[in-house]
Amino acid sequence: MSDSLGPKLQSPLFDQITIIGLGLIGSSLARAAMQQNLGTTVIGFDRSPEVRARSRELKFATSIAEDLAQAVREADLIILCAPVGANAEIAEQMAPHLKTGAIISDVGSVKASVVAAISPHLPQGVHFIPAHPVAGTEYSGPDAGFATLFNKRWCIVTPLPDSSEAAIAKVAEFWQACGSNVELMSPHHHDQVLAITSHIPHLIAYNIVGTAAHMEAVTQSEVIKFSAGGFRDFTRIAASDPTMWRDVFLNNKEAVLEMLGRFTEDLTALQRMIRYGDGDGLFDLFTRTRDIRRNIIAEGQETAAPDFGRRSESEPQK
Amino acid sequence: MSDSLGPKLQSPLFDQITIIGLGLIGSSLARAAMQQNLGTTVIGFDRSPEVRARSRELKFATSIAEDLAQAVREADLIILCAPVGANAEIAEQMAPHLKTGAIISDVGSVKASVVAAISPHLPQGVHFIPAHPVAGTEYSGPDAGFATLFNKRWCIVTPLPDSSEAAIAKVAEFWQACGSNVELMSPHHHDQVLAITSHIPHLIAYNIVGTAAHMEAVTQSEVIKFSAGGFRDFTRIAASDPTMWRDVFLNNKEAVLEMLGRFTEDLTALQRMIRYGDGDGLFDLFTRTRDIRRNIIAEGQETAAPDFGRRSESEPQK
Repeated sequence: MSDSLGPKLQSPLFDQITIIGLGLIGSSLARAAMQQNLGTTVIGFDRSPEVRARSRELKFATSIAEDLAQAVREADLIILCAPVGANAEIAEQMAPHLKTGAIISDVGSVKASVVAAISPHLPQGVHFIPAHPVAGTEYSGPDAGFATLFNKRWCIVTPLPDSSEAAIAKVAEFWQACGSNVELMSPHHHDQVLAITSHIPHLIAYNIVGTAAHMEAVTQSEVIKFSAGGFRDFTRIAASDPTMWRDVFLNNKEAVLEMLGRFTEDLTALQRMIRYGDGDGLFDLFTRTRDIRRNIIAEGQETAAPDFGRRSESEPQK
Repeated sequence: MSDSLGPKLQSPLFDQITIIGLGLIGSSLARAAMQQNLGTTVIGFDRSPEVRARSRELKFATSIAEDLAQAVREADLIILCAPVGANAEIAEQMAPHLKTGAIISDVGSVKASVVAAISPHLPQGVHFIPAHPVAGTEYSGPDAGFATLFNKRWCIVTPLPDSSEAAIAKVAEFWQACGSNVELMSPHHHDQVLAITSHIPHLIAYNIVGTAAHMEAVTQSEVIKFSAGGFRDFTRIAASDPTMWRDVFLNNKEAVLEMLGRFTEDLTALQRMIRYGDGDGLFDLFTRTRDIRRNIIAEGQETAAPDFGRRSESEPQK
């Protein structure tokens, strides 16, 4: 087992932590919470009986509850890790069973609509502190999780105007113990930042993979064979969970359409440069885009290995 | 040193191999040719005095020539590895010095325009066999090269209607000894295949990185911090060599504009689905795109490690 998250806490942050939704993110979070001693007990729940059964086999939580009410009744921290579109229903169903003083948080990739979906259902006396860990892989389900998924990644916490400072601090402490760096911002600003850093990249990756699947001049088998020329990098994020991403686009419509408009405008300008043979314009853009990657590597958000380290398949890194 | 290219040849394929242009591809090719005993001598040349000096220090060739005429005079195989836009001038300058029976090849990412640029300058009695190894990293220059760059990657050879079968076979043998799988197709078809598998992916990666650099609502530092949500995958290919890519777009204009038209059409349809909340349409596309990645992994053109193996920074792979 890796100890790269640092030493585990001497005493737990919470008495009971409950995680709703045991896919990649939820099951990773349960593993991290157990490994780091963040709760005296860590309870998991998933609406799918198969996922509950598999999660018991994987033993990544203290126990897996059989129903939502039982899962949340004694919880001091509840983290919603289901697809964003399921949040309103979960909030409504669990509301009558919440303990006074409980903290409700989530991991959704969109925040303004999550706040709008969850807040109206929550009773007085509980704290809602939305959050979004910017981490993931292209795999889904409880088997795909691992305790260090959030290590050295950012977790964005988006408190509401009336959020309790103590509850915000508790949620931040939780994520820091999972290895994350925590940043606070408003739900609205979060949605703009994620539209450009995550949602639009996923959208255009899904789109080009779709375009490539419908060529007449080029066969599917040629696309696959010669994908090392660039295409395959896009297929990784276009293999992400379809339910999650459907919900992201339906729930961050405004920011996504705004940024997509800019992307398309810029692409039209680039298309024009190609059509009219403006080599200097192309060279200029292609030079500027190099710097941003250097900065991402310098900030520790990326590996500097050539070709994402794929080279290590055949030869050791320099 | 890696032995993953297999045993080196008992006797060289060529007496003298000359490589013109000693960047990532040219210097990798020289290293592979030396390691695999593909030529009795391997001569390098680059028009930049700095690159020549550095290449001598790196010792990846038998020797580095001081001028083009001297580099090609005795060569049995000449491979042009300069940016595509430089090919016409190189062909014109080297033409008077070529040995009868010499094979001229190249590594350009576009083929029809390379054929048009080079063919008119070549004298009778030499063989021109264009080729394109589909391999690379985001790094440039003689230091970035390594002998196994082409291992298990495809090399597309695009013979002309009157190409000699013996010369085609010799070039194919050369690439196979560098570890590549060889496929033959026409220059025109090559350009269509690469437009979708490589040129369009690069173009939209350059474009989104450019778009992200000009937001008012989101700062550059936020883009960098939260890039792990998807954006950073695009920055890798948007960090590729600007000169090479300018030349690619100027020289494969027709196929790139055609495929870009389809990409934009599909993106407009996707944008409409988001605007009108067509969740089923989104889910359907996002499900179909998963298969193509599975096939790329099955074909050995990609690693199956989650997150491109970035996870290995903090925890061993499953």
